[in-house]
Amino acid sequence: MIYMLDLFGVFVFAVSGALAAGRKRMDLFGVVVIAVVTALGGGTLRDLVLGAQPVFWITDHKYILVAAAAALLTFVLARRRKPPYKLLLIADAFGLAIFTIIGTEKALSLGTTRIIAILMGMMTGVVGGMVRDILSGEIPLVLRREIYATASLCGAATFVGLGLVCHNRDICIFAAVVMTLALRLAAIKWDLSLPTFTSREDTNGKR
Amino acid sequence: MIYMLDLFGVFVFAVSGALAAGRKRMDLFGVVVIAVVTALGGGTLRDLVLGAQPVFWITDHKYILVAAAAALLTFVLARRRKPPYKLLLIADAFGLAIFTIIGTEKALSLGTTRIIAILMGMMTGVVGGMVRDILSGEIPLVLRREIYATASLCGAATFVGLGLVCHNRDICIFAAVVMTLALRLAAIKWDLSLPTFTSREDTNGKR
Amino acid sequence: MIYMLDLFGVFVFAVSGALAAGRKRMDLFGVVVIAVVTALGGGTLRDLVLGAQPVFWITDHKYILVAAAAALLTFVLARRRKPPYKLLLIADAFGLAIFTIIGTEKALSLGTTRIIAILMGMMTGVVGGMVRDILSGEIPLVLRREIYATASLCGAATFVGLGLVCHNRDICIFAAVVMTLALRLAAIKWDLSLPTFTSREDTNGKR
Repeated sequence: MIYMLDLFGVFVFAVSGALAAGRKRMDLFGVVVIAVVTALGGGTLRDLVLGAQPVFWITDHKYILVAAAAALLTFVLARRRKPPYKLLLIADAFGLAIFTIIGTEKALSLGTTRIIAILMGMMTGVVGGMVRDILSGEIPLVLRREIYATASLCGAATFVGLGLVCHNRDICIFAAVVMTLALRLAAIKWDLSLPTFTSREDTNGKR
Repeated sequence: MIYMLDLFGVFVFAVSGALAAGRKRMDLFGVVVIAVVTALGGGTLRDLVLGAQPVFWITDHKYILVAAAAALLTFVLARRRKPPYKLLLIADAFGLAIFTIIGTEKALSLGTTRIIAILMGMMTGVVGGMVRDILSGEIPLVLRREIYATASLCGAATFVGLGLVCHNRDICIFAAVVMTLALRLAAIKWDLSLPTFTSREDTNGKR
Repeated sequence: MIYMLDLFGVFVFAVSGALAAGRKRMDLFGVVVIAVVTALGGGTLRDLVLGAQPVFWITDHKYILVAAAAALLTFVLARRRKPPYKLLLIADAFGLAIFTIIGTEKALSLGTTRIIAILMGMMTGVVGGMVRDILSGEIPLVLRREIYATASLCGAATFVGLGLVCHNRDICIFAAVVMTLALRLAAIKWDLSLPTFTSREDTNGKR
């Protein structure tokens, strides 16, 4: 069940990566690379940092194959018809919620402390998109606006915090997914964002 | 023999990195860093992902020294006289072919499956140039046009595929090098490239 | 003592990262991420390459917490009042000196050769700032001008070289810090830099 959701997350993230690559007029190879990196980048960095090597997609081909298939499918279909943007955002929010929980759980199972597990959950959800943006020559969107990483952080904290009092893993997973999704979808709907840093030079003369 | 070719590949990739750094008006340190990263980046990521640590250049100094020497030599010589561009492209194609085989073979020797070994071969050949471009503030060229990674992919697949039926390692290596070189040199000569992604917004109104 | 200095280096580097993120108008999350990456990126890559996993900040929370606290403090305070630039540069030079020695020593304690230990010291000091610049959409400053990495390299070489003849660790550390600081502060004061690469196309027609 979790495994199927994981592959769904890989698929959705790969589609988002392929679309971003398409906007930059990359060729077929570039589209596939960006898609794979977006889908697997977060988990790869998590595994490297935790020393869980070889990284997860070396021993299970399905991850690479699903990501590459999603990229090819996007390449073929999106040439004809642009996918509905709202649907993609919602699917991406699901992917974020799933990756967050899987990352948190993997870190816990490797014996890290709770704080590190929460960070690893967020890293699993967020880093792929950051590498996608860097490879596309952009400043990572997630660093600039929108509540995205924050939703992931709260989801991971919910999962870990609830795990202290409730030993039913399914309930913990469900609550964490709901928390991440609720925050992320609310942020999309009402365009919520964190405060930005305005240094003195920008407000010169105002006070 | 393979080891000498490997150092030749390091040398050629370092020269290409140093020239790219020079175009961006980097200082001597920047030129050396970009050269070393271009030459050793692919193999480093391969070793990290496979868990073959410490990475190869930690235990054998020659890699770092050859790359740094190539950068210094380029720094001194290219100030006077630009190297012939065609010669560089051909040398780079050789480097790509060599790195591809070495990466594929290392992955196989670490017990990965054949699919992963092919990917690792391509990663060894291609990632150094991608990091070079990112450090230079460019979208990686290899993602945008030209048959470069594709040549590496076909070379690695040839090596692995032929290995199934032919147990003479030298023949497999020779065939894989010829495959990579032929594709890459053909792409240079006739300016071949993969199709690019054109999303609907770009063809608006046409159909 | 060294441990306290290490945390001081983390604090200073995190502040420099947070200020850089602020100039790019990132949101609160982006500021914290850039700060943490600037402070911990060099040591993380060092540990990955050497195979010293899990990386240092997984097992000791203080690093992440100090870096995040420095980012939040900078976020709150720098909105009101810009920190004195000169003071920051000097604090950063101290951080560079400390990170260089810690990186060199860690590599030696893991049994690397002296050349690799010097490189690891420089990597520990320099890579965080490079990733900060890449995430901010800039070509890393350290590759382009100013004697920064060179100061780190000379400090690491002093530490390793002196260690051959002098077995008092404190004296080696002191000498290496003085060497790094002296070079770096001299570079700041007199605006010293390494030669840059000028390829023939730029000097066309001159000779």
